[in-house]
Amino acid sequence: MTKVKFALAGMGRIGKIHLENLLQMEQVEVVAVMDPMEECREYARERNISNITKTFEDLLTITPFDAVIICSPTDTHANYVELAAKAGVHVFCEKPLDLSLQRVMEVLDVVEKANIKLMLGFNRRFDKEFRKVHELVKEGAVGQPHLVKITSRDPGAPPISYIEKSGGLFLDMTIHDFDMARYVVGKEVIEVYAKGAVLIDPSIGEAGDIDTAVVTLTYEDGTMAIIDNSRKAAYGYDQRIEVFGSEGMVQANNNFMDSHRLYTNKGIQAALPLHFFLERYAAAYKTEMLDFVNSLKNGALVPVGGKDGLMSLQIGLAAIKSIKENRPVRIDEVAI
Amino acid sequence: MTKVKFALAGMGRIGKIHLENLLQMEQVEVVAVMDPMEECREYARERNISNITKTFEDLLTITPFDAVIICSPTDTHANYVELAAKAGVHVFCEKPLDLSLQRVMEVLDVVEKANIKLMLGFNRRFDKEFRKVHELVKEGAVGQPHLVKITSRDPGAPPISYIEKSGGLFLDMTIHDFDMARYVVGKEVIEVYAKGAVLIDPSIGEAGDIDTAVVTLTYEDGTMAIIDNSRKAAYGYDQRIEVFGSEGMVQANNNFMDSHRLYTNKGIQAALPLHFFLERYAAAYKTEMLDFVNSLKNGALVPVGGKDGLMSLQIGLAAIKSIKENRPVRIDEVAI
Amino acid sequence: MTKVKFALAGMGRIGKIHLENLLQMEQVEVVAVMDPMEECREYARERNISNITKTFEDLLTITPFDAVIICSPTDTHANYVELAAKAGVHVFCEKPLDLSLQRVMEVLDVVEKANIKLMLGFNRRFDKEFRKVHELVKEGAVGQPHLVKITSRDPGAPPISYIEKSGGLFLDMTIHDFDMARYVVGKEVIEVYAKGAVLIDPSIGEAGDIDTAVVTLTYEDGTMAIIDNSRKAAYGYDQRIEVFGSEGMVQANNNFMDSHRLYTNKGIQAALPLHFFLERYAAAYKTEMLDFVNSLKNGALVPVGGKDGLMSLQIGLAAIKSIKENRPVRIDEVAI
Amino acid sequence: MTKVKFALAGMGRIGKIHLENLLQMEQVEVVAVMDPMEECREYARERNISNITKTFEDLLTITPFDAVIICSPTDTHANYVELAAKAGVHVFCEKPLDLSLQRVMEVLDVVEKANIKLMLGFNRRFDKEFRKVHELVKEGAVGQPHLVKITSRDPGAPPISYIEKSGGLFLDMTIHDFDMARYVVGKEVIEVYAKGAVLIDPSIGEAGDIDTAVVTLTYEDGTMAIIDNSRKAAYGYDQRIEVFGSEGMVQANNNFMDSHRLYTNKGIQAALPLHFFLERYAAAYKTEMLDFVNSLKNGALVPVGGKDGLMSLQIGLAAIKSIKENRPVRIDEVAI
Repeated sequence: MTKVKFALAGMGRIGKIHLENLLQMEQVEVVAVMDPMEECREYARERNISNITKTFEDLLTITPFDAVIICSPTDTHANYVELAAKAGVHVFCEKPLDLSLQRVMEVLDVVEKANIKLMLGFNRRFDKEFRKVHELVKEGAVGQPHLVKITSRDPGAPPISYIEKSGGLFLDMTIHDFDMARYVVGKEVIEVYAKGAVLIDPSIGEAGDIDTAVVTLTYEDGTMAIIDNSRKAAYGYDQRIEVFGSEGMVQANNNFMDSHRLYTNKGIQAALPLHFFLERYAAAYKTEMLDFVNSLKNGALVPVGGKDGLMSLQIGLAAIKSIKENRPVRIDEVAI
Repeated sequence: MTKVKFALAGMGRIGKIHLENLLQMEQVEVVAVMDPMEECREYARERNISNITKTFEDLLTITPFDAVIICSPTDTHANYVELAAKAGVHVFCEKPLDLSLQRVMEVLDVVEKANIKLMLGFNRRFDKEFRKVHELVKEGAVGQPHLVKITSRDPGAPPISYIEKSGGLFLDMTIHDFDMARYVVGKEVIEVYAKGAVLIDPSIGEAGDIDTAVVTLTYEDGTMAIIDNSRKAAYGYDQRIEVFGSEGMVQANNNFMDSHRLYTNKGIQAALPLHFFLERYAAAYKTEMLDFVNSLKNGALVPVGGKDGLMSLQIGLAAIKSIKENRPVRIDEVAI
Repeated sequence: MTKVKFALAGMGRIGKIHLENLLQMEQVEVVAVMDPMEECREYARERNISNITKTFEDLLTITPFDAVIICSPTDTHANYVELAAKAGVHVFCEKPLDLSLQRVMEVLDVVEKANIKLMLGFNRRFDKEFRKVHELVKEGAVGQPHLVKITSRDPGAPPISYIEKSGGLFLDMTIHDFDMARYVVGKEVIEVYAKGAVLIDPSIGEAGDIDTAVVTLTYEDGTMAIIDNSRKAAYGYDQRIEVFGSEGMVQANNNFMDSHRLYTNKGIQAALPLHFFLERYAAAYKTEMLDFVNSLKNGALVPVGGKDGLMSLQIGLAAIKSIKENRPVRIDEVAI
Repeated sequence: MTKVKFALAGMGRIGKIHLENLLQMEQVEVVAVMDPMEECREYARERNISNITKTFEDLLTITPFDAVIICSPTDTHANYVELAAKAGVHVFCEKPLDLSLQRVMEVLDVVEKANIKLMLGFNRRFDKEFRKVHELVKEGAVGQPHLVKITSRDPGAPPISYIEKSGGLFLDMTIHDFDMARYVVGKEVIEVYAKGAVLIDPSIGEAGDIDTAVVTLTYEDGTMAIIDNSRKAAYGYDQRIEVFGSEGMVQANNNFMDSHRLYTNKGIQAALPLHFFLERYAAAYKTEMLDFVNSLKNGALVPVGGKDGLMSLQIGLAAIKSIKENRPVRIDEVAI
């Protein structure tokens, strides 16, 4: 069996997850890792990676590989993808490609011309819960969808320094939910109404962002979606979905630490949801990477492509415009 | 013990429920019933009610009573309440008082001058599920509320003839949810954004109404609420609520036919929710009536007053305006 | 409509429940009540019962009636049923008929000769949860039953004075579960192995009884049942059942105070089960009485007959013998 | 970091699981594998194991290692453990050590004299569900335990050829539950009453075994446990536990394929439990192996020792005697 040769750019939290998952796949060989920070390169060294560089440019020349996983900071994504594409290397890139719609379109253009595969890291599509909902909706179990409800709340807000560069709640956090809204019913969104507030931490407001939001999406056929977000759920990571349609409803729930129920004279006690995305989506990250590897090996389409990144970004930009102008905004108002 | 003397106007579905509940209370005597239809009067006769009339005017003169329950059609409510108030009789009136804000304010003015008690039939406030959520929120169990989510779906749409006179989805159905949104966190709503669609039955659209809706409410302090409605849930009556706050979240679920779980090789099967409001709110109707009787006996405030009807109506009118103009509408745009 | 005329003997806790339920049925007239205690007779007077007596003998002569509900202490049951039978009156009797197998058989003989209906108050058969399980098993939803599991725990032990006259845990408390074991799969038990302990209160042991027990039943076809009992569950009344068979399993759960779930950083909190039998089986008591009335009106068989009392008593006596001799005991070892 | 050197004997289903888990541990090096079957050795070769042998004797001489994992057939366990002990190698051995109590005691004697660590593969102790129950009981969350309930049902019976050599249901399957009964409350069992039947497949009966069983255990302090087993649950692997005590109750449930709930007019549908032990206990197998490695590295006691195997075997032998003689059997009747 010829192994697919992989490089990774960025050995942060997500980079490490992808590296570990790739190291466990027989059909894969990780040949190179790039990170500007010494401690991250050290991590790769301990995992016996042969080629380790400080820059993406060096990564591309150090040794040949078939595909690169880009987990570096968001503002490097677009350049790295372009460089990789021009080098004829397939790319798996963490979301978002870029915060600028113009830039994203340039990148997608380069990708298309280079005829490489580009997969975006919308990891939740690979979660067994959401996938089950997607499949049941697809096979008609709830009939024609009428309403989609997505709850997405983090256990705690990231540092203000992160928030300042994040593109804001909608492009940083809700963008996963925008993608989910499209994925779960397989339809495009045409209008967005967003409402936000600073209810958790005033310094988030001072940084020009919001920490709590409610977004109404309207799809092309009149189906509606509701997303609710919070940067801080006291009880941990809250990731649920519900699709209601003409024939029924399907829900997916959180994943919990364990199933115990403790009955005492004070009431019944149960365990909290898995605390954050690393725990909740551990298996999803594996499936995601496996699907990417498989699409490289068998020539299939990648399950999440550049267009998916583009569409979610447009919804996010419309949400930003909606909240500024306090009115519903059509996607075609922000699309180029 | 002196019994409180009651009359009932309107022996339809709800009127019968209230009659049966009153008949079981030791502290109450039902002395008169009014209904223009013979078969409804016959029902009262079988229950051994002494005085039975065809008109509300006759009801007020036939025999003295302390309070009247008004369950007649919506377009009679305002007149009957005024007549009762002028006769010095306390009133329990099914919602809404009237579909016209102007008319409601006239009625409330008469009620105030007559110094009688007026209670409105927002029955869900007396449901043990919603009451528990209300109490937990009130005692700070979830901290400062940030998000309220209300799901309210009927098992099937009423006849078009009913819909045509109903005032539309927002004043007929969602109005319960508007009241719930106020009740559950004890705050006033200042802005409404409503989105609706005709997804169930085109004839509902032809009648000028919608059958599916999503409403975003903003409270005075930035807290947000989301309501989702459908006239037809294939699986029955769906009445859930969730309040998310700085310290946690509380949810109330549907009530189910039974708790059985059947495990076979096809999956796990469970019973559906109680089918409609008569089943789900059977106990709430009793508690509601008991609370009204108690407020008459001990001089306490009625738990749901005329102002509650007024506020919900205003939210409903703002929702109607919002959907027409596809923009968020402030309550003060519709308030008189 | 001719009303069925009822008398009640015994106005204790259960007697009051039956009285209230009968008073709400249109097809019934309660014409007489008997109780040796003045305060209990006073209760009946307040409910406007016309004929009130101190003795069962007087009850039978004071005014004619069709049926009598016997809710007096256990040691009066056998005599009252015989007296009623000889007077040609149908009987609903709380369980047990008697603690002596010999005496029960004498009574059943009298009942048979008198050709009256005798229904026993195994109220749990009328609970919607257990009934659903019974029906699913009957229609083959779990295939051929292999295992039955019954959990039955009280929220607190009764006074020692009660326990001393109760016949012991097996005849007082488990007897409901013995009946349930027969009801839920429709088969007869042929062998019992009982294990018991005094783990809650030593004074129960001093009174010659146990407070915790595990009983294994074997049915005629090899199906097995397990019952576990405790006189004191800190979290309230625990009444569950599970039937496992060749094609699947069905479970029925407790009924809870409400469905709320409170998520905080300490975990998830939910409401306890309904506290005791009065709350849990309130609806079952109504259904039970209605079924008795219906069997009188339409001549159908009563749903729980004298034989059901006899069989449960035999299982209970075998359990007592089993625990004394620490060995499995066949029903035919105790049957007469 | 010095790596702990491991060998594995037996590359069947469980052997492969342990190999994969060891290969992912940085602190471990797998230096040798033994299996008499060529296809199993081939599996090891593909995983790049350096030393591969056909016999356990060769394994002990081929290259030095610190510990061996024994996953070969049951009838080889005792010999292999003795050989390893005499070679001064620590041992992790799949349960049971042997079906003969005499032989187990001989082996434990050799182990003790050799002063090596011996850990037994009671994998369920490492499952997060059961561990949570164990911990809550240990910290007194349910007070003094009174009742333990263990449900353990397989999705399907193994082949008759397997059953014939298995030692029977109690030593092959229930032995896990006997260990769980000891683990979950930390007390020793003194008496067993077992009841069994052939309800699934007559050929199991012809092989001298049973396929359905109910076992009552009595602990030294009067606490009681109930175990119910079936070789075939139509809905998959059923592994639940409940501990009831003076202050409350704790339950652990199955793990399910996913959390979806599908509501349609036919009812509510949910996913089945994870199908069998490989899925349900995948994480437990990892934790188990990690705990063994850690006990080797830090010199701690192994979490499940030889005595645990001995005690469970004794309970199993008592259960076999109980079913033969249809009477409760004290552990000291079978202990040597």
